[in-house]
Amino acid sequence: MTTRTELPSTEVACCAPPTREPMTAETAAVLAQRLKAIADPTRLRLLSMVAAHENAEACVCDLTEPLGLTQPTVSHHLRVLVDAGLLTRDKRGVWAYFALVPGALDSLAAVLTSQQPAEGAAV
Amino acid sequence: MTTRTELPSTEVACCAPPTREPMTAETAAVLAQRLKAIADPTRLRLLSMVAAHENAEACVCDLTEPLGLTQPTVSHHLRVLVDAGLLTRDKRGVWAYFALVPGALDSLAAVLTSQQPAEGAAV
Repeated sequence: MTTRTELPSTEVACCAPPTREPMTAETAAVLAQRLKAIADPTRLRLLSMVAAHENAEACVCDLTEPLGLTQPTVSHHLRVLVDAGLLTRDKRGVWAYFALVPGALDSLAAVLTSQQPAEGAAV
Repeated sequence: MTTRTELPSTEVACCAPPTREPMTAETAAVLAQRLKAIADPTRLRLLSMVAAHENAEACVCDLTEPLGLTQPTVSHHLRVLVDAGLLTRDKRGVWAYFALVPGALDSLAAVLTSQQPAEGAAV
């Protein structure tokens, strides 16, 4: 017979285990890259301006003047959005046309909303 | 009688007007600031780890080790998330506890999904 009792572990007391699997490092890296592409005021406005046009497509000639930026600066931002898979670029005649990639912003938003409290975890 | 015909205007042909009002510069600046806070792999993982815990709240003592980063680095990232209004910080005893601000990620996601093609504009 022993009189020894279990000592409460302070580590256990402070540290509840997660109730579900958190995001992996790989997923976080990919998602951060796409979020960086839109985490810029000019690029957000460009996306919004393209979305506001008929068929969610706009000529580059429509996008430069409202921003008050030079053509090379606007072209740089548009390229970042194309590289991030958020816009497509289509050269027709002398002008380039940019269109929203259907569902791209939706899928980004869906990842954010999936980072909610685990089911049944509400207080 | 005249043989002159109307020349097609290339300006008009290239430039369709927007079908709705695009995002203002002020809104874009505020949104970009919040997106910057989450456009980082470590901060995305921290948000996800907090969300994965019961009641969407986790002790800082649970967050450092899985990331393999130093405590000051993790604290810096947590502070950015608190400043962006995505996490709350509550000191209880020796540990700080971080909780998701209810609806904060949802409202961020909602702004993204609202940047979709104008109604009836689908091809």
